[in-house]
Order: sequence, then structure tokens, then C-alpha cells
Amino acid sequence: MHPHRETFTAYIHRLQDQICAALEAVDGSGLFEEDAWERPGGGGGKTRVLRDGGVFEKGGVNTSVVHGTLPQLMQERLGANEAPFFACGISLVIHPKNPMVPTVHANFRYFELYGPDGSVADAWFGGGADLTPYYLIDEDAKHFHQTLKNGCDPFGTALFSDYKKACDEYFFNAHRGESRGIGGVFFDYLKGTPEQPLDFWQRFTESVGNQFVEAYVPIVERRKNLPFTEAQLFWQGIRRGRYVEFNLIHDRGTLFGLKTNGRIESILMSLPATARWEYNHQPELGSPEAALLEVLRQPREWV
Amino acid sequence: MHPHRETFTAYIHRLQDQICAALEAVDGSGLFEEDAWERPGGGGGKTRVLRDGGVFEKGGVNTSVVHGTLPQLMQERLGANEAPFFACGISLVIHPKNPMVPTVHANFRYFELYGPDGSVADAWFGGGADLTPYYLIDEDAKHFHQTLKNGCDPFGTALFSDYKKACDEYFFNAHRGESRGIGGVFFDYLKGTPEQPLDFWQRFTESVGNQFVEAYVPIVERRKNLPFTEAQLFWQGIRRGRYVEFNLIHDRGTLFGLKTNGRIESILMSLPATARWEYNHQPELGSPEAALLEVLRQPREWV
Repeated sequence: MHPHRETFTAYIHRLQDQICAALEAVDGSGLFEEDAWERPGGGGGKTRVLRDGGVFEKGGVNTSVVHGTLPQLMQERLGANEAPFFACGISLVIHPKNPMVPTVHANFRYFELYGPDGSVADAWFGGGADLTPYYLIDEDAKHFHQTLKNGCDPFGTALFSDYKKACDEYFFNAHRGESRGIGGVFFDYLKGTPEQPLDFWQRFTESVGNQFVEAYVPIVERRKNLPFTEAQLFWQGIRRGRYVEFNLIHDRGTLFGLKTNGRIESILMSLPATARWEYNHQPELGSPEAALLEVLRQPREWV
Repeated sequence: MHPHRETFTAYIHRLQDQICAALEAVDGSGLFEEDAWERPGGGGGKTRVLRDGGVFEKGGVNTSVVHGTLPQLMQERLGANEAPFFACGISLVIHPKNPMVPTVHANFRYFELYGPDGSVADAWFGGGADLTPYYLIDEDAKHFHQTLKNGCDPFGTALFSDYKKACDEYFFNAHRGESRGIGGVFFDYLKGTPEQPLDFWQRFTESVGNQFVEAYVPIVERRKNLPFTEAQLFWQGIRRGRYVEFNLIHDRGTLFGLKTNGRIESILMSLPATARWEYNHQPELGSPEAALLEVLRQPREWV
């Protein structure tokens, strides 16, 4: 095994602590409760859930560190045989109560595959963060993207724009012809090369991960006390319905977890406490709801 | 084309009228509104939706009569080439407000595939009906199953038990290890044979379809005025979440529609107006909620 296995595992646990502390601070009353769980095939995780806080209706910040033999589905996806693997990662989704505060998702992970002699045959980093507002506030979208860009730029000025594009492509509800949210960054299979060894990508991934709190929490701080109406809550419910659709129909991580006997409650912690489906709902022309839809149908450059 | 194409198309429209009228009568105030739509590739449908009625929160009773060239995904499923096809069907899902009234789903359909000379190369009927209670009332479960059985029995005494089993197998949320509801009947690819020609299966399918109103409406009538608590509504929300999970993760018809550019609003009309996800929700031992879960984990024979 590479040293990254140990150092990145330590990193995700530090990041989990840091993010939970920052979210509890901005929430003001909610606290994360931890469920530690074990995976029958090897390893386990720490699921931390905050429910019915002052600001957040439901949020989960999970880490998992698992190992074993590649599940069938993973073999197919990677074109690999029944090989031993190791994976560790942090995954979070936060659903606020106030529709003026966006939902956020982030994930940072490391993967190792081993050969017959036990040496590392392949290894890579992946991750990303993306924002799902219910009402579009340009200042917030710019802040979120700029903060993530600041984490990417020291590693190469093309990275942010490549991974921003990948994010728009990935978090796309194809059956609706609209994005899940206003994006952020998304990257996967970051493998070492002579110029950019695995260590480079670990530092990159951690650099982006370290931006998460600064990317999200100031937005929450600014919007958490804005007034809102029943009609705005209704719209939040409709948009949360689309979030559920993406996660259950398209999200590779979710479907992979469900089909490989992952821990269901940790996987589906990403779903909002409540969601709504209204037949043929169309926002009024020229409304703030229509303005959001426009940017979901035609992603914008924010920085 | 076979005569079934015309006669079954007429049947589903009669059944749509009959079911909508019966549901409006038991609802007392809600009315179905119709959206007629056209399919770019050929044909179209009539989507009828009832919203915020006296008894029903959201219900859809849709018919569609479509034709064209087999979509790619359908070619793969059927092991067929790019052939002309015809399909007509009725599909309904009804979500009541009162958690003492079960949700119900039914679907009856006919399919024709044509050869190069335009003659019918293959044809079959399919369909079913299943009940999803929030609280298990044995009398209702027995009534629903017995009424469907009465529609099957004239065509062969083994049919009901085979199709009841198929229903339990199909409407199964594998990732939860539980059924969506308490079942009913489910059948597909009913093709003509010398002993049981296509005409036999049309009469069978119509016989089951004709039982729908009698299978469901008396249950609604009996339970629609029962009192209920906030806690029972909460449980209804949790179970509706599982309904959403089944339809978006497992239901072949839904996924097929989404992946072949079906009319999204007609397909996702099956989703409840609201649903709920609570981290690691476990009903209290010995509670009515736990009793429901028990039968969802271990399907029962009701007749």
C-alpha cells in the first residue's frame, strides 16, 4: 500500500471534524450524532447526522474506510478482476430549512487496487463539491465557485475550468433536461504520472476539501435569517424532488452503494427530509423560480 | 394488425372513464383534469390528474396509444431489431390523504411487434394491480386479493396464485429487503398459444381490469373518514419515500420511459405529492407500523 492510504484516511477524519464543527456553529442549535458501523466485507464508517437544527433540516457528514474484494459491479466498471481493494472517503449533503439557503454536497475519496502479489496495481483520488440553490443569488454562486477555484489554482490554472465543466456534465438530470444545481467541481480517476505523481493529486484533493467550509458557510451565514413564504417553501419542495430524482436515477455513487449492499441508511442520508412532486409544475414567466430554471438549463460561468 | 389492437384500445378508454368516474364519486369533491398529449414518434395519450380532492391528495389515470419504431432500449430488452411496434395501455396510481386509506396502482397493456412485411410478428398482454397500505387492515388486504382472484379464476385456477407470486417478486425494494406493498397480481408477455389464443388473454386482462373499481373503492369508502394523527401522517410520509425509491430505482416501466424520452410528467405522475426520508427510522416494536413492516418483509397469502 501507498502512504496515501494512511495519510488520506487521517485527512478525511480531520476534515469531518472540521466541517461538523463549522456547521454546528452556523446552525446554532443542532448537533451531529455519530453512528459508527462496520462493513461485513471489511472496514466500516462513521455516519454523522444532524436533524432538525436551527438552520439545517437534515444533514449528514460521513466517512468510510473500507477494504475487501472488489464487488462484481465495481469489477465491471473498472474492467478489473476480483482484486483486493481499499477505499476511503468523506461524503456530505446538507439540506437547510430556509429556501434562501442552498443545499450543498461534497465528496473526497481515495482508492487503491492490489495485484496478486499484494502490491498497489492502481490508485487514484476523486471528489468534488456542488451547490443546489432554490433561489439564485449571483453573489453566492460566484463566492462558491471562486472559493473552490482558489483551492484548484495552485495546482494548474486549467484544472478549475475542466472540473467545473465535468461537474455540470455529471450533476445533470437528463430526463428533465436540467442540472441538479449550479455546479462547482467534480473530478475522478486522478492517477499519478511522472510529472504529477499521486502525491500531487492528494495535495490537490486536500486543497479543494479544505475550501469547503469557506465556500459554503459564509453563504449560510448571510441567508439563514432571510424571511420566506409558504410559496417559496413549496418551490423548495419541488426542487428537492428533483434532487431525489437525480440521486436515485442517475448518481453513480448511490446506485453503486445500493447494488453492492452498502449501508442503505448512510447512502440515502443524502435525501432531503421532505420532497414534493406536483404534476406539470411550471414557474411563472419572469419569476425568481423561472430565473433559477434558466440557469439550470444553461449552466453559466461564475468566475 | 390483430383486431385486439382496436378492441383493447377501445377497452382502455372505457376503463379510464369508468375508473375516473368511480374515484370522483368516492372522493366527493376532486375532479380529474385531462391533458391530451402527442408523441413525436407516433401516437399520444390522455393524462388525467386529480389534485387535492376530498379523499385523494394526488391521483393519475393515464391512457396511451403509441406506435413507431422500437426504441433502442426496447430492442435490447426484447432481443428484437429496429421493428415497427404498437402499444396501448392504461396506468394509474392513486395517493390518498388519509394514512388509513392505501395507495393503489394498476396497469393493463397490449403490445404488437411487426415484421418486415407489416404482419404481426409478436403480440402480448400484460398488467396487474397492487395495494400499498400504510396501516395493515387484514379485511382490506383480503378483499383486494379476493376481488382480483375473482377476475382471474374463470380463466384457470392456477393463474391467480402464479400472478400473485410474480407481483410479490416484482414490487420488491431489494435495497430495503421489503416489498413496496402487500401485492396483488402482476403478469406480462401473455402470448397466444393454440389452447389459449391471444383472444383468451385479452378476455383475461379485461376481466382483471374490470375488477379494479370493486377491488379498491370499497376499501376507500370504509376508511376515508377514519381519524388519524400527525404521527400516522409522518409514517405515511416515510412509506411514500419507499414508494418513490421503488419507482425511481427499480420500476422497469418508469426507467424505460425516462430513458426513451417518454412524457416525463405522465410517467412521474406516479410519485406522491409529498414524501419523507428520516435517517434510520425504526418503528417501535409491537406497533402497527412494525406490523406492516413484518408483512412487507414476509409476504402473506391473503386468500
